[in-house]
Amino acid sequence: MQELITKGESAKQASRKLALATTEEKNYALEVMAEELIINAGEIISANLFDVENAIKNGMMQSLVDRLMINKDRIDAMAQGLLQIKSLPDPIGDIIESWKRPNELVIDQQRVPIGVIGIIYESRPNVTVDAVGLCIKTGNSVILKGGSEALSSNKAIIKVLVEAIEKTNLPEGCIQLIEDTNREITMEMMKLNKYIDVLIPRGGAGLIKAVVQNATIPIIETGVGNCHVFVDRYADFDMAERIIINAKTSRPGVCNAMETLLVDKQIAENFLPKVLKSLVEKGVEIRGCEKTRAIFSQAKPVTEQDYYAEFLDLIIAVKVVEDINDAMEHINRYGTKHSEAIITADISHAGKFQNEVDAAAVYVNASTRFTDGFEFGFGAEIGISTQKLHARGPMGLKELTSTKYIISGNGQIRE
Amino acid sequence: MQELITKGESAKQASRKLALATTEEKNYALEVMAEELIINAGEIISANLFDVENAIKNGMMQSLVDRLMINKDRIDAMAQGLLQIKSLPDPIGDIIESWKRPNELVIDQQRVPIGVIGIIYESRPNVTVDAVGLCIKTGNSVILKGGSEALSSNKAIIKVLVEAIEKTNLPEGCIQLIEDTNREITMEMMKLNKYIDVLIPRGGAGLIKAVVQNATIPIIETGVGNCHVFVDRYADFDMAERIIINAKTSRPGVCNAMETLLVDKQIAENFLPKVLKSLVEKGVEIRGCEKTRAIFSQAKPVTEQDYYAEFLDLIIAVKVVEDINDAMEHINRYGTKHSEAIITADISHAGKFQNEVDAAAVYVNASTRFTDGFEFGFGAEIGISTQKLHARGPMGLKELTSTKYIISGNGQIRE
Repeated sequence: MQELITKGESAKQASRKLALATTEEKNYALEVMAEELIINAGEIISANLFDVENAIKNGMMQSLVDRLMINKDRIDAMAQGLLQIKSLPDPIGDIIESWKRPNELVIDQQRVPIGVIGIIYESRPNVTVDAVGLCIKTGNSVILKGGSEALSSNKAIIKVLVEAIEKTNLPEGCIQLIEDTNREITMEMMKLNKYIDVLIPRGGAGLIKAVVQNATIPIIETGVGNCHVFVDRYADFDMAERIIINAKTSRPGVCNAMETLLVDKQIAENFLPKVLKSLVEKGVEIRGCEKTRAIFSQAKPVTEQDYYAEFLDLIIAVKVVEDINDAMEHINRYGTKHSEAIITADISHAGKFQNEVDAAAVYVNASTRFTDGFEFGFGAEIGISTQKLHARGPMGLKELTSTKYIISGNGQIRE
Repeated sequence: MQELITKGESAKQASRKLALATTEEKNYALEVMAEELIINAGEIISANLFDVENAIKNGMMQSLVDRLMINKDRIDAMAQGLLQIKSLPDPIGDIIESWKRPNELVIDQQRVPIGVIGIIYESRPNVTVDAVGLCIKTGNSVILKGGSEALSSNKAIIKVLVEAIEKTNLPEGCIQLIEDTNREITMEMMKLNKYIDVLIPRGGAGLIKAVVQNATIPIIETGVGNCHVFVDRYADFDMAERIIINAKTSRPGVCNAMETLLVDKQIAENFLPKVLKSLVEKGVEIRGCEKTRAIFSQAKPVTEQDYYAEFLDLIIAVKVVEDINDAMEHINRYGTKHSEAIITADISHAGKFQNEVDAAAVYVNASTRFTDGFEFGFGAEIGISTQKLHARGPMGLKELTSTKYIISGNGQIRE
């Protein structure tokens, strides 16, 4: 707890100076951090080795060990990421709107840093570098709380980044890593309103839920995606198949991957056999409704639970629906309002779907996999917001900012 | 609890239809609601009489009884408020940004309703009408939880508004009033994530704090304003006095009123006597630092607690500071980041103050009292946000909206 308060206070104080840093100063810091990562790669890799050996000893799944592992290439990629952030325009200081009132008061709405951003994550150590880079670019102090399985790696990375900051004009204290691995600390951090302005959880559904339930700090909820592709009766079959294969199999473990396929009953018999066969060939397990199973006997029976599931795996639920309305009804009931797609050549169905489906990203004739800060052209991504306040969908630099009103008068008083 | 779930479910269902309502349909509903308020004024006034008599019986302060009371004029004002909201542009459906990616995907960011907005308030019954009008205009269902002392009035008002909605195309269920006055219900409402998308508390510091501490729904924190006016060494004395009198005395009970006056020591002796005398003549109690008391002996001694206080009354704390940096240091330590003003003729001091002070509204040479949706020209106000997420400062219609990304492709898949 004392660690939290000390580091919180330090981050808060630093945030006041950091908010006033120039773009040049921030960009220089990003450059130095990138250089220092490369220079100190050996140190980071050996610290990571400790985590990796521990993970293997503790029986961590090979795929997770792979994600945890840091090598020279991955450090190069982290450094490149910082230089990429450096190259992006600085949103701080932008005047978003400006107007003059009848009483001659001039009101400017200016983009400013949020202050102190807390990030609780359980992802790979590269998130550490990424989050620091995005926060520094937007003039925010950052307090990181990573998973205990990556603590040694994260400590080594943060040590390098903090030492890099010391070589610049940016204030000491703007980068903080909570090292106490006690679970209670995470709970306390969620209630640290005095020092943290916004909390962003990055990780699985369990982590997100814990933060939603317990945080008193404003949060940005990220992540859970039970995404659907609906193949309308007016779909181009080849296009639909291409998109389905991409949405389901290109990276099944991510939040913008498709989990359930919905098909209009008018085309189900003609459309499903070929696409489901292709999916099976890609190693996908099919769980179908009764109509699907009548058409494609290899499909296992689907359960209601499957419709709610974010499989994050090579499993797909398939349902034959009455029409577009039935499809939207299903999406509304089971979806998580992340990314939803319709495949159709009919302009009125396309418009209806985009208008009526309530989700962060609604696609016509494209893969749900595009819901991503880089694919949207933001040049960065801090996560994908699934809430409706502040940010919705992929978040880039702008989503790490707040605004303030600057009002200039010549003696105006209110009547 | 059952009431919450039933009404929450009903509001959520209605919100899906309401989100698709046209501007004409929503404006027509606002018009009918305004008419019905006038037609049913007698019913509302007699329901209000019940609350007023109870309040008097329970020994409520006269000023609060006045706020509670509804008469014909106040109903006219409520109806006028709805027509004013009707006249505002509908933000829903606006395309905020639109761009094409190198792969030809077209991305539109569109303004959409939030869904269901919960409002917990303890203010006058006119807030009931106001909140309903703003939510309907922005296509949001609304769930209201008012104070028990106004329950009879709120029930009568909501009955009229719900019956008005029934005469239109808007979906039944989009306006809900929680009638259970059990305190537990308010706590449960703060955790109703399944049905409420955003919660806005409107009321005193105690209510706001309870919501921040207990809500699991995303909230917009409103209200607490410990606002400062700093008179710089380069201030025009007459302008400063005019602004101080306005900021302190024009309506001391509101959040944008000034609570502490800071004066540069170089001008304190010349400036303070006249302005403090004027304040005293207006009935203001002066609580000054030692330097202030040496200049103006009528001042009582100020305490550290006074510097933190939102008096909401004819009381002012006065402190002589070293310079602009000392003033900003004080504002940073004791302020609530609501509205802060500098009075100065020096352009570099003006710029420094606007740049370095972290608050929702930062004024140069104008009264803090302008922090208000109407004064900003928004034509409406749902409250003043003092948080940094989503909205900061006065909130109009736009702040009751979210966005979604609409992506149009021709078969794009992600590499």
